[in-house]
Amino acid sequence: MDAPRSTPGDTAHQTGIDQLCINTIRTLTIDAVQKANSGHAGAPMGLAAVAYTLWQEVLRYDPADPLWPNRDRFVLSCGHASMLLYSLIHLSGIRRVKDGKVTSAEAVTLDDIEHFRQIDSVTPGHPEYSHTTGVETTTGPLGQGCGNSVGMAIASRWLGAHYNKPGHTVFDFNVYTICSDGDLMEGVASEAASLAGHLGLDNLCWIYDSNTVTIEGHTELAFDENVAERFRGYGWHVTHVTDANDCERIRAALEEFRETKGRPTLIIVNSVIGYGAPDLQGTSKIHSDPLGAEEIKKTKAFLGFPQDKDFYVPDGVRERFHSGIGQRGAAARAAWDKNFRNYAREYSHQASQIERGLKHELPENWASTLPVFKPDTKSIATREASGKVLNAIAEELPWVLGGAADLAPSTKTKLTSEGMTALEKATPGGRNMHFGIREHGMGAIVNGMGLCHLRAFGATFLIFSDYMRPPIRLAALMRLPVFHVFTHDSIGVGEDGPTHQPVEQLASLRAIPGLVTLRPADANEVREAYKVIFSLKDEPAALILSRQALPIFDRGKYAPASGLARGAYIMADGDGEPQVILIGTGSEVQLCVAAFEELKSRGIRARVVSMPSWDLFEKQDKTYRDTVLPPHITARVAVEQGSTIGWDRYAGPSGAIIGMHTFGASAPLKDLLKKFGFTPDKVVEAALRQIEQNKAS
Amino acid sequence: MDAPRSTPGDTAHQTGIDQLCINTIRTLTIDAVQKANSGHAGAPMGLAAVAYTLWQEVLRYDPADPLWPNRDRFVLSCGHASMLLYSLIHLSGIRRVKDGKVTSAEAVTLDDIEHFRQIDSVTPGHPEYSHTTGVETTTGPLGQGCGNSVGMAIASRWLGAHYNKPGHTVFDFNVYTICSDGDLMEGVASEAASLAGHLGLDNLCWIYDSNTVTIEGHTELAFDENVAERFRGYGWHVTHVTDANDCERIRAALEEFRETKGRPTLIIVNSVIGYGAPDLQGTSKIHSDPLGAEEIKKTKAFLGFPQDKDFYVPDGVRERFHSGIGQRGAAARAAWDKNFRNYAREYSHQASQIERGLKHELPENWASTLPVFKPDTKSIATREASGKVLNAIAEELPWVLGGAADLAPSTKTKLTSEGMTALEKATPGGRNMHFGIREHGMGAIVNGMGLCHLRAFGATFLIFSDYMRPPIRLAALMRLPVFHVFTHDSIGVGEDGPTHQPVEQLASLRAIPGLVTLRPADANEVREAYKVIFSLKDEPAALILSRQALPIFDRGKYAPASGLARGAYIMADGDGEPQVILIGTGSEVQLCVAAFEELKSRGIRARVVSMPSWDLFEKQDKTYRDTVLPPHITARVAVEQGSTIGWDRYAGPSGAIIGMHTFGASAPLKDLLKKFGFTPDKVVEAALRQIEQNKAS
Repeated sequence: MDAPRSTPGDTAHQTGIDQLCINTIRTLTIDAVQKANSGHAGAPMGLAAVAYTLWQEVLRYDPADPLWPNRDRFVLSCGHASMLLYSLIHLSGIRRVKDGKVTSAEAVTLDDIEHFRQIDSVTPGHPEYSHTTGVETTTGPLGQGCGNSVGMAIASRWLGAHYNKPGHTVFDFNVYTICSDGDLMEGVASEAASLAGHLGLDNLCWIYDSNTVTIEGHTELAFDENVAERFRGYGWHVTHVTDANDCERIRAALEEFRETKGRPTLIIVNSVIGYGAPDLQGTSKIHSDPLGAEEIKKTKAFLGFPQDKDFYVPDGVRERFHSGIGQRGAAARAAWDKNFRNYAREYSHQASQIERGLKHELPENWASTLPVFKPDTKSIATREASGKVLNAIAEELPWVLGGAADLAPSTKTKLTSEGMTALEKATPGGRNMHFGIREHGMGAIVNGMGLCHLRAFGATFLIFSDYMRPPIRLAALMRLPVFHVFTHDSIGVGEDGPTHQPVEQLASLRAIPGLVTLRPADANEVREAYKVIFSLKDEPAALILSRQALPIFDRGKYAPASGLARGAYIMADGDGEPQVILIGTGSEVQLCVAAFEELKSRGIRARVVSMPSWDLFEKQDKTYRDTVLPPHITARVAVEQGSTIGWDRYAGPSGAIIGMHTFGASAPLKDLLKKFGFTPDKVVEAALRQIEQNKAS
Repeated sequence: MDAPRSTPGDTAHQTGIDQLCINTIRTLTIDAVQKANSGHAGAPMGLAAVAYTLWQEVLRYDPADPLWPNRDRFVLSCGHASMLLYSLIHLSGIRRVKDGKVTSAEAVTLDDIEHFRQIDSVTPGHPEYSHTTGVETTTGPLGQGCGNSVGMAIASRWLGAHYNKPGHTVFDFNVYTICSDGDLMEGVASEAASLAGHLGLDNLCWIYDSNTVTIEGHTELAFDENVAERFRGYGWHVTHVTDANDCERIRAALEEFRETKGRPTLIIVNSVIGYGAPDLQGTSKIHSDPLGAEEIKKTKAFLGFPQDKDFYVPDGVRERFHSGIGQRGAAARAAWDKNFRNYAREYSHQASQIERGLKHELPENWASTLPVFKPDTKSIATREASGKVLNAIAEELPWVLGGAADLAPSTKTKLTSEGMTALEKATPGGRNMHFGIREHGMGAIVNGMGLCHLRAFGATFLIFSDYMRPPIRLAALMRLPVFHVFTHDSIGVGEDGPTHQPVEQLASLRAIPGLVTLRPADANEVREAYKVIFSLKDEPAALILSRQALPIFDRGKYAPASGLARGAYIMADGDGEPQVILIGTGSEVQLCVAAFEELKSRGIRARVVSMPSWDLFEKQDKTYRDTVLPPHITARVAVEQGSTIGWDRYAGPSGAIIGMHTFGASAPLKDLLKKFGFTPDKVVEAALRQIEQNKAS
């Protein structure tokens, strides 16, 4: 680092009540970690003064209304420092939100802090969004919070661009992020920082806790880059606070952020991990171990806290928070409320749009204008169909925006209606994001936008979903209805070869709890998939689409595509009980249908089950599932251009699975289909063998 | 960018034969892409002069011996520019390696180039290591090659530190990487660059093709950071070449790299994508579309090539390569050979170690000193056992090195024997890497080390395998025997909560073709797992270990742990045919064993199958598989603290699967086991229900 390190002990102290508040954060942390016998005390102790100053003097947040849409967002990207956040939530007196409503209960009680990291507590090891009021995003996996905060800052500007009117500032919230050495080492934070600089997000402030201590030891072991220079390269304003206990300097740095226009700000704070623990501070030992009784004694002595009281909040501390963040926040919120009431009178259309958007409510009949695709010999790739449907939706639903990781011409995700410009520095209200070749950053940024209630989406090739699994997982854990459009979904990629042909990605996405994965078979199933996606309020979705053209099935002849909503449905059936069931997803449904027709012409009764979503199918009752896949019909063929993992469940123990057992290859698709056995003939063959075998057994 | 852009047409041209060589690269590319009707011509055209100068004048590479261990490594990180590499391989006359031996055949023939991107060709869409001689690593997913190159540069210095002797330089190869805008946007490249700067890798040179054109358009849309400043922040030397056709300046920049000590070099080259195509150059249209007949005509006219000859290599071109890279390389290799013969006489131990290492050969009885763990009430986490076994192996096998993404104290992967220091700038021969909190970079770097024949490993928590899936996948695609140690493998993580508790990661890793995933049940299975891992020559492995202590089973009473090698084995069995089979992996085997004992005490015949590796089990013949899991015994219980996806295959359609259906939670482990149903009682219950049900049916 290019700033001098402060040495423990030589720091300027606040006097009086502010210092007491700061030390209360430290002692609550110490006691909670000690009692849980696990957790991270070091960062909260080192950062207590920084976070206190931010919350108490700067953060525009009304503890009485944690749902206020224009509140500043605070992100603790180093989520392991959760006790810092829980202490602040408790001491600020943030009210608890339940079922979407603010209650009179405390979000985090002292009792909750005593139950830090215990079962069913609101104080889990890492902060969890929607689980604990006041937590704006789930963090812990490093770098993610940084990425989220960029999405939030984009959302603030986007909302402002759309809804602010002369004399009416409805949205202008700032986003503050505390991040650690680990966050800044992670590539996802680099990607997000580069894009934040590009977009000139001057409402974004990262406070970098440079404590130089990581689990393996001093950051000298692996991380001695010049962070300031790197961030200047990204186009950020960079400033230093050389002593994390110097509240005056912290205040000045935060002021500097608010005065800096046209670029985000990085405040590098030199801190001492575990500040206040005489023997352990500044060492990696205090990163994630309880201090132990002896050291706690010494620490409390140093901090001037009584030895005999655990979880002690001295008189005046809560009052101080109340008169600080509490009164500031309440006044700001009240002024906003008043303004918004006037705004709603003058701009009722916009105001009701905002209210609907915040609740993820859909206008009535929103889906009525979605395209219906006629059966046609002129076939269409599902990515193409997706582009048409998504554009139709974006016309109806104002809060839909997103983009691709530099692949929009391929993923067909560009929103093309009039006025739907690129979202750039000068056009923050644009609806087309250019994420750049930064899939991981895209995932984290989309989550941040989703956390501000936008129906945000990302897009890339399915293979590159591997680059962004952590934010996809976190969206599922947060129950956040964002979505991703993953095209080029199989060996259908053709000549680009195995590096670009997904094999295991479908299975891997299906394995994420709470993520709805959909792989529609044709253009009309794409429309139905979007209906499902936009109806979700608590689940993210992954829409898996083909690069190559696929036939549009005749839905007069075969069952309607609306069956998609149930995950799997009988698309074609013979007269009487089927002799064999053919199950396909996406581009392979056409193989099943072709095989069905061939078998029919030979007098064999087959059934085609289109199975676009395992997740949705598993939510159906057993009766429905058994109707689609009757347990006693064991002659089955499942076809999917992906790993066979998991297909045994639907193919059954004696069923055939036509899938990928290796990586793909580089060649024109027609050659690959032959090489890997994805032809109607192969399906017919397998079906006949199945009928034979299951007769025999 | 902070350098002026060169405009098309005003570039200095080489005269004579060198220009002819450069333009041959361009025309071969154009013709190949046109014939394949797919592929990327733009980058090879823009970079032809840069790559030519590098190969012809600088790269120390003997086309007659592509296996020469001290050859410079060339990495094309922007793998979509594959025709650049194939052209160079062809024109340089690199010989083909088959079955580990250099043959007299050409690695890439003109016919191969005519079959660019066709089935079974050696010229796939993106370069594939081991598939095409001369390709040093598989690239295409952006940023990966950058990461690999850092690993290669580390390997060069590591080998040099261990084997070079006064008067004998055995290893000192340089690593050159061509990378694109997209590579430098990816977080994995940022992580790798930061570590390369930290380690002061002055044998590493990245040539950044700043052509400012990506798929969505000009880089202004998403990427306008100051790359030079950012890399200076990382500790790199940065230099500029403002015209990608200015061979003299390219030469000077490469010379500057070789003279720069103590830091890696980034050469920023301003290029014109599709240089030479009058109407398309400098546009995103030429990134990935064939030029079309008309534009090809104009381009060949501009380049002075005949219109009527496709895939045309003018007289003198091959000869020029031969007298350049060919003769330089041959001389360097001959000198090295001579030196190595002398070295081998003087340092026979070292020389034979090198020869064995290059072939991944293991010393005889290498595994004889591995620890055997006695059954004990004092249980031990499998991560702890792993630390002991890995250390014993590292004593025996000199080329074993690796480290963690800042988690070594937790993953227990530190090599602690005397002399096994940290691998740092001043100690490049250390055996403990400090990767920093950079999982993705770690994965790519480990691959690079593995490509130089080191038995390299990475380590982190299993949850963070999500951050590094792309390099894990590429290791499998490259058939590279590297491995990763993934600890904290389940809700066993406890208080850290759902952000840190893997649920879907096991299923996701199992879905990667060619990756061997192992989850041993106890300390002795850990030893056996390592025996398997080090015997692999063509497959990477993922070793999945517990955070929490697990019992060490009495292998007198239960079957020996050596059964692990077959993926699954009968660990405990009753007398006579079992009434129910209990299948477990890792920490859940203890539940199966406890249930087995309980059932036994009730007179019920159960079988315990320990199933540490699906991958290994699937490689066994049917007879063995049916012995372990007889198809007619359908009463089964599978237990694993992970997603149930895929378990139907082994549990069967009527079997019970005790797994995770949601994310985990933050609490002490004992509470989680109860909450999620992982207790011996639950296994017994399920077993009894299974026996009952399967009797009834």
